Amino acid sequence: MRSSPLDATFAALADPTRRAILARLATGQASVQELAEPFDMSLPAISKHLKVLERARLISRGREAQRRPCRLEAVPLKEAAEWMGDFRRFWDESFDRLGEYLKNLQAKEKRHGRKKR
Amino acid sequence: MRSSPLDATFAALADPTRRAILARLATGQASVQELAEPFDMSLPAISKHLKVLERARLISRGREAQRRPCRLEAVPLKEAAEWMGDFRRFWDESFDRLGEYLKNLQAKEKRHGRKKR
Repeated sequence: MRSSPLDATFAALADPTRRAILARLATGQASVQELAEPFDMSLPAISKHLKVLERARLISRGREAQRRPCRLEAVPLKEAAEWMGDFRRFWDESFDRLGEYLKNLQAKEKRHGRKKR
Repeated sequence: MRSSPLDATFAALADPTRRAILARLATGQASVQELAEPFDMSLPAISKHLKVLERARLISRGREAQRRPCRLEAVPLKEAAEWMGDFRRFWDESFDRLGEYLKNLQAKEKRHGRKKR
């Protein structure tokens, strides 16, 4: 079973501080200093979390030398949401449609794995 | 920043085999042997993944001595989907509604943390 970008996305989301940072960045870009302030964390602690988010491509950093603002990147989070969304549809739908749902989900997982290699 | 059940859910989802097991279990319960077969994995390898999923409460194990079938548990996955869903709504909505979205998301994250402690 091959790893996919979803691995890095979900691993990055497995931390409450990183989820809070993403929620903060959903209001607009922010510098490391601005991010550290409301969370009452040290800059090194925030920087460590930002590196995980950046490696997962959930955020990007600006090029401005002093500030290098962090920005939320929509695509990986959206792809993870789509994976989850397939399960949500599963819960909402009747048992009659289970077979069809799974076929689509497995095909999508396979396509996703191939596409990203 | 306190950890929440979402931490365990997202950590468990950060692996393609575990995601595939969940997709398989969406069609109905299965024994470890049945799960191992299509994935072409050893029983110990599958068991290790099942333990991670079980600790995250994404699956539960039956009581039948011989078979102990695994069953998908909807709640944690649904809660994670709801967290992601808030972001999806964010992408779809206009910038005018960003402020309101974030307020709801942060309130939900806080409520979630408190409720589960």
